[in-house]
Amino acid sequence: MSSSRQADVAEPIHELIANRWSPRAIDPDRPVTRAQITSLLEAARWAPSCFGDEPWRFLVYDRASASEDWERAFACLVEGNQAWVKNAPLLLAAVAGARFRHNDKPNRWAQYDTGAASVSLCLQASALGLVAHQMGGFDGVRLAKTFDIPEEYTPMAMIAVGHPGDPQLLPEALREKESAQRQRQPLEVIAFAGRWSAPYRA
Amino acid sequence: MSSSRQADVAEPIHELIANRWSPRAIDPDRPVTRAQITSLLEAARWAPSCFGDEPWRFLVYDRASASEDWERAFACLVEGNQAWVKNAPLLLAAVAGARFRHNDKPNRWAQYDTGAASVSLCLQASALGLVAHQMGGFDGVRLAKTFDIPEEYTPMAMIAVGHPGDPQLLPEALREKESAQRQRQPLEVIAFAGRWSAPYRA
Repeated sequence: MSSSRQADVAEPIHELIANRWSPRAIDPDRPVTRAQITSLLEAARWAPSCFGDEPWRFLVYDRASASEDWERAFACLVEGNQAWVKNAPLLLAAVAGARFRHNDKPNRWAQYDTGAASVSLCLQASALGLVAHQMGGFDGVRLAKTFDIPEEYTPMAMIAVGHPGDPQLLPEALREKESAQRQRQPLEVIAFAGRWSAPYRA
Repeated sequence: MSSSRQADVAEPIHELIANRWSPRAIDPDRPVTRAQITSLLEAARWAPSCFGDEPWRFLVYDRASASEDWERAFACLVEGNQAWVKNAPLLLAAVAGARFRHNDKPNRWAQYDTGAASVSLCLQASALGLVAHQMGGFDGVRLAKTFDIPEEYTPMAMIAVGHPGDPQLLPEALREKESAQRQRQPLEVIAFAGRWSAPYRA
């Protein structure tokens, strides 16, 4: 991984976190193995959740073993995503519950916890040498209807997974993004020393 | 870390993910250093987010440098959490935005993305040999009022951080949880092969 893809930090962070990013260049010819898919799901499964509710659900679309499902999931993506996801051997959908299992009351942490499970999955992808890229640009209503997702579950993201590919295969508009310096807002914008009026200084 | 604390998985996952858990036993005498706090925040900062919005915000309550703020944050926790958080040198609050920066429209991924940032922070804590434990049991209205959190931001979690402590210091009811086998629902409950009616089999 080139140095330009590493996170720019005021204090070191673990390389698994520093090196994870969201590439679009995916090798069209290398499938993700069953063992790798299971490993991704296991990483999500062990995320923390409020009351241990584990409100996350993941739907797996493996092009190698279930190409029709893959095609129907792919069809739920917006055009801008289809332009590069067409090379991805694996698609996942991350879905969040609405109510706690233990008391059937609304779970206001369901989406928050599902986000934790999904990023754990993406970190595991990175650990396996795979790329994983989450997308919000998809038709969740169509996805739910196509795959019988119950009404009380909310589709949050689709995730494209595969082996790193050649950026030259990307549409020109996306090729530049692939090598651009990764950016975040400064730490003092997202962190505060106690009160909101006091930016955190590293 | 004892083997009973490691995740039970059908396929291996990265040790950083496998070993993270949510202990309650925290050493009351070892502060978290400024560099460590910055490292935790950096890990959160580099999480992925929809449209790169980075909707997460973190408030830092460091007992060593700002004991009054720490006390006021601690007072927002429910009693059951106070019983063990009293030993934590560091408290954090994770807060989610509501609208995208780029177009001011509602961001339906704000809480999902904030969950990703928070678990990244917890994974980094684990990488530093610290313990981090997220809590939903706190008074978010009181927290927002006390620390001037703007109305459009939603407090999602408070996070207790510190060095591992002696479980014997915990109230008896919590001591057992500290050494109990970690549990998750089976993989086939949270993952599906395409449609909802098809449990994923590892």
